[in-house]
Amino acid sequence: MELLTTYGNALSAHLHKAVTVKEPVQLYEPIKYILTLGGKRLRPVLTLLTADFFGDNFKEAMNAALAVELFHNFSLIHDDIMDNAPLRRGKETVHEKWDVNAGILSGDAMLILAYQLFEAYEPAQFQELAKLFSKTALQVCEGQQYDVDFETRDDVTIPEYIKMIDYKTAVLIGAAMKMGAIVAEASESCCEGIYEFGRNLGIAFQLQDDYLDAFGNPETFGKQVGGDIIANKKTFLYLTALQNGVPGDVETLEHLFSIHPVDPEDKIETVKEIFINSGAATATVSEIETYTQKANKVLETLQLSEDKKQKLREFGTWLMKRTV
Amino acid sequence: MELLTTYGNALSAHLHKAVTVKEPVQLYEPIKYILTLGGKRLRPVLTLLTADFFGDNFKEAMNAALAVELFHNFSLIHDDIMDNAPLRRGKETVHEKWDVNAGILSGDAMLILAYQLFEAYEPAQFQELAKLFSKTALQVCEGQQYDVDFETRDDVTIPEYIKMIDYKTAVLIGAAMKMGAIVAEASESCCEGIYEFGRNLGIAFQLQDDYLDAFGNPETFGKQVGGDIIANKKTFLYLTALQNGVPGDVETLEHLFSIHPVDPEDKIETVKEIFINSGAATATVSEIETYTQKANKVLETLQLSEDKKQKLREFGTWLMKRTV
Repeated sequence: MELLTTYGNALSAHLHKAVTVKEPVQLYEPIKYILTLGGKRLRPVLTLLTADFFGDNFKEAMNAALAVELFHNFSLIHDDIMDNAPLRRGKETVHEKWDVNAGILSGDAMLILAYQLFEAYEPAQFQELAKLFSKTALQVCEGQQYDVDFETRDDVTIPEYIKMIDYKTAVLIGAAMKMGAIVAEASESCCEGIYEFGRNLGIAFQLQDDYLDAFGNPETFGKQVGGDIIANKKTFLYLTALQNGVPGDVETLEHLFSIHPVDPEDKIETVKEIFINSGAATATVSEIETYTQKANKVLETLQLSEDKKQKLREFGTWLMKRTV
Repeated sequence: MELLTTYGNALSAHLHKAVTVKEPVQLYEPIKYILTLGGKRLRPVLTLLTADFFGDNFKEAMNAALAVELFHNFSLIHDDIMDNAPLRRGKETVHEKWDVNAGILSGDAMLILAYQLFEAYEPAQFQELAKLFSKTALQVCEGQQYDVDFETRDDVTIPEYIKMIDYKTAVLIGAAMKMGAIVAEASESCCEGIYEFGRNLGIAFQLQDDYLDAFGNPETFGKQVGGDIIANKKTFLYLTALQNGVPGDVETLEHLFSIHPVDPEDKIETVKEIFINSGAATATVSEIETYTQKANKVLETLQLSEDKKQKLREFGTWLMKRTV
């Protein structure tokens, strides 16, 4: 999306200037490493976009945007340790390239560095940004904990699942946008509105991720198609299929989600069929649409030009149409 | 020390009210666990004492004091994972009682909760406290990294060692006291002065810890006497002995610090003899005295009644006379 390239480029330039390796290098090298691995930089770009739409100089939001990117990458480093993940964006994870201790300590430093970036703002704005940041960061930790808890629970409900992805993924997207609005000194109702827009879009985004994991095009989907099925992950698709499937299918599904076959192809195919036959696939598409519409509805209430609202709607559509 | 009991009791009462277990319990239980394991609570008590000495209501500093205690315990949880330590204050460490993932995530949440506690203060004070906190927290991470780096280096200098303990231990003691002064709205020079007082005392405190590890009374020293020697830890004693010892002793010392005998008694005895004969033991006592005097000298410049200065001096003496 062309609109986003401007912000993305400005952020990259700022990031390369702001993130340098100093002593002790073992602490700062992993930070530079993960931050320059690439990635979509979706969250900080949204901070800049929102600041641009509500203010007259998006560059004022650069430090807040970078704080969001630092936090996101902090959570990736620590999550990768917890998930024992060898790869991130196709490259070695920090704990693989260095070790678990480097991952823990560099992650800790990144969280602190994120807070430091808010020091560029005057006290009232500093407090507002740091408060939003802390609240969001804590929700992300809680979301991660729910995600861990769900692995060993067999009674996860759909509302619980939505709360988990809301906390783990969506609130940070909402907060990233709200930070842009705060820096641009938008009205409180605009700050709240854009937060809800981002948060609903964030839920839709994560549900889309779940959907693509099963039904994405292997040619264009960045990750392994069927990865969640192989990992027996209780996604929206799975929970809905359990709830709405016919008894025989439900039993099959429960069984398949208790095993780890060496060759998972048959398992993936059977699970996908059950996802389709139970109506879970359709229900997921419809849920994505519901949250996208919720986001667009909030947009109506905002004091923004029709042109900018249209651009935000297009952004939402672009985000949901992505096949990667 | 009687003076400290009042603050310690007030803090404990506040802590038990403020730290509750909520959902997801797996995230918050380890936090409550480590915070109620006991410990000296030296740092938060110093925040309250300083607020009392510079202001008229030390309870206003309660949230800042709790933030300091949360941060300290966050760093203990993550350090214990890195050091693979099974015990903390005689009880199971968090990663032993739960697992490494619980330790990482609960630690992260504690760091965020510490920042949240500053939200009780109005914007200007909030910013001042959070800035000091971030700067200090980052130094603590850097100190921990230096400590890790030193394990595999054989060219650590004494100034580097002092910088490591300054960052890992002393700056937090300085910051804990400065936070009390900030909340009490003490002058900038008083805030700086009390910070330097605490920081110098902190270095003396850590050097004392190194000294007691080798020469403490096994009856009263809380930890295993000789623990640093068993772990081949490059303390001030070791580095000074290397620098000032006679050639034969230096070789023996280097050899002994490259082995891990099953029965370490002989090793401990020989190393202690070298520490004494090289003059390292005396040099350490003298260095402790130097930093204590530095702290007391800063005290002279502060706008505080002679009575309060005397109490702070007594506190320093008490801290240095401790045998545990």
